[in-house]
Amino acid sequence: MNIYIDCMGADSPAEIINGAAAAAKEHPEINIVLTGDQSLINATLPASSAICNLKVVHAEDVITNDDTPTTAIKVKKDSSLVKAFNMLKEDDNALGLISAGSTGAVLTGATLIIGRMEGVYRPTLISQLPTANGGFVCITDSGANMDSHPEWLMQFAIMGSSYMRAMTGKANPSIALLNVGTEDHKGNTLTRTTYQLLAASKLNFVGNMEARDALTGNYDVVVCDGYDGNVLLKGSEGAVKMFMKKFKQNVMASLSAKIGYLFMKKAIKQLRSAMDYNNYGGGPFLGTKKPVIKAHGASNSMAIRQSVNQLLRIKEGKVLEMIQQGIAENEAR
Amino acid sequence: MNIYIDCMGADSPAEIINGAAAAAKEHPEINIVLTGDQSLINATLPASSAICNLKVVHAEDVITNDDTPTTAIKVKKDSSLVKAFNMLKEDDNALGLISAGSTGAVLTGATLIIGRMEGVYRPTLISQLPTANGGFVCITDSGANMDSHPEWLMQFAIMGSSYMRAMTGKANPSIALLNVGTEDHKGNTLTRTTYQLLAASKLNFVGNMEARDALTGNYDVVVCDGYDGNVLLKGSEGAVKMFMKKFKQNVMASLSAKIGYLFMKKAIKQLRSAMDYNNYGGGPFLGTKKPVIKAHGASNSMAIRQSVNQLLRIKEGKVLEMIQQGIAENEAR
Repeated sequence: MNIYIDCMGADSPAEIINGAAAAAKEHPEINIVLTGDQSLINATLPASSAICNLKVVHAEDVITNDDTPTTAIKVKKDSSLVKAFNMLKEDDNALGLISAGSTGAVLTGATLIIGRMEGVYRPTLISQLPTANGGFVCITDSGANMDSHPEWLMQFAIMGSSYMRAMTGKANPSIALLNVGTEDHKGNTLTRTTYQLLAASKLNFVGNMEARDALTGNYDVVVCDGYDGNVLLKGSEGAVKMFMKKFKQNVMASLSAKIGYLFMKKAIKQLRSAMDYNNYGGGPFLGTKKPVIKAHGASNSMAIRQSVNQLLRIKEGKVLEMIQQGIAENEAR
Repeated sequence: MNIYIDCMGADSPAEIINGAAAAAKEHPEINIVLTGDQSLINATLPASSAICNLKVVHAEDVITNDDTPTTAIKVKKDSSLVKAFNMLKEDDNALGLISAGSTGAVLTGATLIIGRMEGVYRPTLISQLPTANGGFVCITDSGANMDSHPEWLMQFAIMGSSYMRAMTGKANPSIALLNVGTEDHKGNTLTRTTYQLLAASKLNFVGNMEARDALTGNYDVVVCDGYDGNVLLKGSEGAVKMFMKKFKQNVMASLSAKIGYLFMKKAIKQLRSAMDYNNYGGGPFLGTKKPVIKAHGASNSMAIRQSVNQLLRIKEGKVLEMIQQGIAENEAR
């Protein structure tokens, strides 16, 4: 079983390389193929620690965030990302691919080179967020698809449910539709039609959900158009950041509070760690013939190790088979 | 100059009544007309403190969140809200209306009884959020309009700009378009077309903005469809709530952190106060012939006093005249 990791295009390729090396040691049963600048990779990996299940494939070129995704995927044949995708495509024994590079290029590469699964209208980018009860919720779609149709959202729900079943072990993860109110008739044309599709499906659809409840832990999967999922995701991130900044300002303005902070330091560090996206790996891009994990550009080595675990869970949990079955059943209704 | 305040339908009518009484004392130059249950109002207002610019108009009925807005506005003629709207309509000397009741009923009442300003496609509900730099940002639309057209968003921008000019004194408030990335071409069909309209307008349009930057204080007005504004607003609220809950859990799990909390108590109280929506009044609903403030259902008396201040600023800043002019100029282009 092989996993392909593009180690260029990330903010810190060294973190990706170290994460890949650690994952290879943790999972002797799999082979990891790293694509990128050979000399950079060699300089990063400690010479003493030859890892026999970690292979390096040199790539001359890099796709950056400044490249136009479609053009870059077509033209930059020697880039670490395109080389990894081409190997993934030909490999019948592959678990998937991980990249912390340009989101647009990763999604375009997956769609153009790997291709959609039969019956899938649009692959979806899933994002995972920590919840108040110590678990996590997945948002689908979180930014890959704009101007979605209700049938796409129905499939995002099937893909999210299949993924969360594998990740949490729950037989039937709960699915909520992101909306402006909880009543059945609420929302816009998209959500009102999607509501009907979800209600008629075999999924564990629990109804409409307001954005303020996304992180309560009461829902496993939040279904929405990619524009809205992106607003929810980044809006939550921005609000917490703003709150932290205000908190810091208020603490720094008072001697007593500064003393209090010293007593609280450890608890705040634990809080930061519980909220750290690196603990959750990357965002799975599902609906293509092989799964792809889009890791955050600023991923550290932990995020890459967790991304490898995600691909293993996707395999063990037969996520792609479940998606295929769910979509076929839904079409047959 | 008269202000109409519906004191029923709120979580706590006593807060509304006390807020109205305080505002009447603060502003002897205006008259406040309270509508609601006369005996409840009399029991709440201290008998000793007759306020000569506070008048009570008895209303038998109340519109609740369980009522269907359109039906309630048409049928419940004796409700505190409909009575207040009817007086507002007939009063050439009115500054506007304040209600902490059902959002749907307040917006429907404003549109059906007061009516849209000439040239306005859709009135907009503006929400104000505190920003990291101590100011606030306004989100338009924040939930009144679904399935918006680009021309509506263009008008939301004009209305938001006119309002923020009056509230902040800035000659030309900055306008950002809520989007999934900052590049010009980003987004869905709605935002791509709206971008063109805003870029060609006389407004201080600064381009696309990601949801994570909404609360930085770098923008005065965030323009979006009501579904998306609602997700941004409630998503931010939910994220901060989740963060606070996690923070509390982490503090309570450690003796040292609990001690630290005691030293920090005052700073945290100040932080809560800085983030309290009651300090910002309610959400102005603009684009109808007379302005309406939709206060939060859980508003306290401070929120009502601030809502009165908002109506005064809207009058002083000639917000309605500016909207009328802005919309006419935009149509003429």
